[in-house]
Amino acid sequence: MPRITSVETVDLRFPTSLTQDGSDAMNKDGDYSAAYVVLHTEDPALSGFGFTFTIGRGNDLCVAAAAQRARPLVGRDVAELCDDLGGVYRELQSDTQLRWLGPDKGVVHLALAAVMNALWDLAARRAGVPLWRLLAEMSPEQLVDAADLRYLTDVLDRDQAITLLTAQESGRRQRIAELESAGYPCYTTSAGWLGYSDAKLRRLCEEAVAAGYKHVKLKVGADLDDDIRRCGIAREVLGPDGHLMIDANQVWEVHEAIEWVKALAEFDPLWIEEPTSPDDILGHAAIRKAVAPIGVASGEHGMNRVLFKQMFQAGALDYCQLDAARLGSVNEVLAVYLLAAWFGVPVCPHAGGVGLCELVQHLAIFDYVAISGSLERRVTEYVDHLHEHFVDPCVVRNGAYVLPAAPGYSAEMHRESLATYSYPDGSYWAARLGGELP
Amino acid sequence: MPRITSVETVDLRFPTSLTQDGSDAMNKDGDYSAAYVVLHTEDPALSGFGFTFTIGRGNDLCVAAAAQRARPLVGRDVAELCDDLGGVYRELQSDTQLRWLGPDKGVVHLALAAVMNALWDLAARRAGVPLWRLLAEMSPEQLVDAADLRYLTDVLDRDQAITLLTAQESGRRQRIAELESAGYPCYTTSAGWLGYSDAKLRRLCEEAVAAGYKHVKLKVGADLDDDIRRCGIAREVLGPDGHLMIDANQVWEVHEAIEWVKALAEFDPLWIEEPTSPDDILGHAAIRKAVAPIGVASGEHGMNRVLFKQMFQAGALDYCQLDAARLGSVNEVLAVYLLAAWFGVPVCPHAGGVGLCELVQHLAIFDYVAISGSLERRVTEYVDHLHEHFVDPCVVRNGAYVLPAAPGYSAEMHRESLATYSYPDGSYWAARLGGELP
Repeated sequence: MPRITSVETVDLRFPTSLTQDGSDAMNKDGDYSAAYVVLHTEDPALSGFGFTFTIGRGNDLCVAAAAQRARPLVGRDVAELCDDLGGVYRELQSDTQLRWLGPDKGVVHLALAAVMNALWDLAARRAGVPLWRLLAEMSPEQLVDAADLRYLTDVLDRDQAITLLTAQESGRRQRIAELESAGYPCYTTSAGWLGYSDAKLRRLCEEAVAAGYKHVKLKVGADLDDDIRRCGIAREVLGPDGHLMIDANQVWEVHEAIEWVKALAEFDPLWIEEPTSPDDILGHAAIRKAVAPIGVASGEHGMNRVLFKQMFQAGALDYCQLDAARLGSVNEVLAVYLLAAWFGVPVCPHAGGVGLCELVQHLAIFDYVAISGSLERRVTEYVDHLHEHFVDPCVVRNGAYVLPAAPGYSAEMHRESLATYSYPDGSYWAARLGGELP
Repeated sequence: MPRITSVETVDLRFPTSLTQDGSDAMNKDGDYSAAYVVLHTEDPALSGFGFTFTIGRGNDLCVAAAAQRARPLVGRDVAELCDDLGGVYRELQSDTQLRWLGPDKGVVHLALAAVMNALWDLAARRAGVPLWRLLAEMSPEQLVDAADLRYLTDVLDRDQAITLLTAQESGRRQRIAELESAGYPCYTTSAGWLGYSDAKLRRLCEEAVAAGYKHVKLKVGADLDDDIRRCGIAREVLGPDGHLMIDANQVWEVHEAIEWVKALAEFDPLWIEEPTSPDDILGHAAIRKAVAPIGVASGEHGMNRVLFKQMFQAGALDYCQLDAARLGSVNEVLAVYLLAAWFGVPVCPHAGGVGLCELVQHLAIFDYVAISGSLERRVTEYVDHLHEHFVDPCVVRNGAYVLPAAPGYSAEMHRESLATYSYPDGSYWAARLGGELP
């Protein structure tokens, strides 16, 4: 079998701050970026592709950290790595010196995600199947071996996780068939970025409804009068039966969140997303209690499985929005999906950014097939940005992700995109920076 | 007034893994390291020195992040910066792109600590006083302006914090006089590193008692039989009245922690430190309930003020061990001290590593003088390592820190130490690595 020969890392940045795509009350000028990792092997036809997502400055830190994280993989046999993805994850995660910089959070954890995402991509390519199917063909024991259950066993231990997965095993085939026919439902955030005008907001909401979406999400939290006007426009376009979600991107104190959300209650939002600090488990629980029946959603900044465990224990979330490139790759994502199912909380993954839609479609599909067995109150984010850079971009039809069929985790980007948007030497940035050091 | 002219950053690593100084059940081979920052000004006699602490690999990431964090300071007027340390902190902290990599955690937050520690050092040098005195001479309003209360106001708002500080204001002068006479009490961890033999453990415990220490801390968690034997030795040397603390450095699941600590209860430990994941607020609360009257201590990996807020809300800690170089410098440390006082939890700061003792002495002194006004159940860590590299090293006498008198935050290191231990080009590493790339 081939060995890993080298690790390629690329600092990729897309100049999204120019158009205010992605603007919200906290993140005003993001340049959507990826710390991109390629695991090359002795077989030129077999590589693994992965990344983590950032919004610009500091993407270089993730790239440098990914190179360190991936170093132990060079020279290793691909088959041995792919047959023990749990063991490899634990080996990289527990680096005795890098661990100090987390543990399991921030730059070193984002970098672990990039590297292990690439290894999962490699494993699926080697098996000749899309990632969701690789997972769907694993036994409950194999899945639990891959999942990172460390620090979770007071709530969910290995045997309980196996029991949970086994209960859904017989229905896997039928649920795959259902999704192959209908796709996995998604909602769009493309309509509601904070930097857009009212006219653009109305037009985009109308387009979303026409395209088959039943959910639309707006950014809120900068100015209450603006929010009331914008929510009114969206609700008017959606009609009483459409779902309106609002997203504050962490701008509020706990009591502010409660007051502000109550002021928007007349527009009947399905959820308030990221009302306060993503680390504030007890704060989310207090907000949830105060604003019910409006739901509370959070997770795109959920740093690790230990945070989510407590979010569930504290009854802090109605919707879990885990992030495929912030959690430590599929290994930790699996653990959070298992926890969510154990507590009966639906997972509606965060997407958008660069390539997050490409990743999370696999996870959402697998969740329905093998973990939760339910689509109820589940809808995955979709943002219509930057898909053109991907070799196997996600496809959305009638408000639903079409099941990806190509082998891998859909993470590979076009070589031309790397050549154009690598920072600061790619052709786009070289021209824009005009030789000036960034 | 002078301006900041440049930011110097140094990746400093000390080869402590060779002697197993600092070894514990989780951190087996740390090379104690500092991401060191110097803020140079137009006045050659006035610079600011700061750092964050790591244990080796990845220190380069903190150095690179610190350079990015500090960039907005270059060219700025020193007086304006030093007169608005809260505003500068908030400006650097809320970088709209770097924030994504946290927020307020991991590499970018460690780097913020290094940079803002240097700015606080500069402010104290400019005022010609040690940092603890700079703080002790600030009004309640000035202190609260500097403190980072964001996301805390559901528990402690600005007015409450001012009330708390005002209540202690009249006693400041008297408490300074007390500490000038007796010092601030500390305990030693130097005796109990996991890699040490029983004979060395016994000798070091005996030396600690002879030197006037009333507390000794042992590392536990690798092997229960070893722990029972080692705790027996320490308790025998300490006698029934000495305080024995035990430290598991995060190796246990919640239920394991409870069982293991109960098995060591016969040695009457004062506290169990870091029994499980540092992120597990509810886990710490469960352990605390189960092992009482043995106390629960944690905080050296406490990532930010939002975590500590919840630790206090959940009743998870008997002792708060905040870290001066992991929290976002004095600004965030102030917030955690205020929260701790509000909840009546004693703060016993984490120290050791490189230079943490030099920093935390200032904080502990200031806490007594102006925030808690109490020494009850308070004792600050002291580890006898690497002080020789500091220009103004901490001094411990009769088990107590002697009040530092030199201007600044005691963070400056000798130029020769930088030349020897900078990585990988310093003379020590160049010789050891023999020209090989690390």
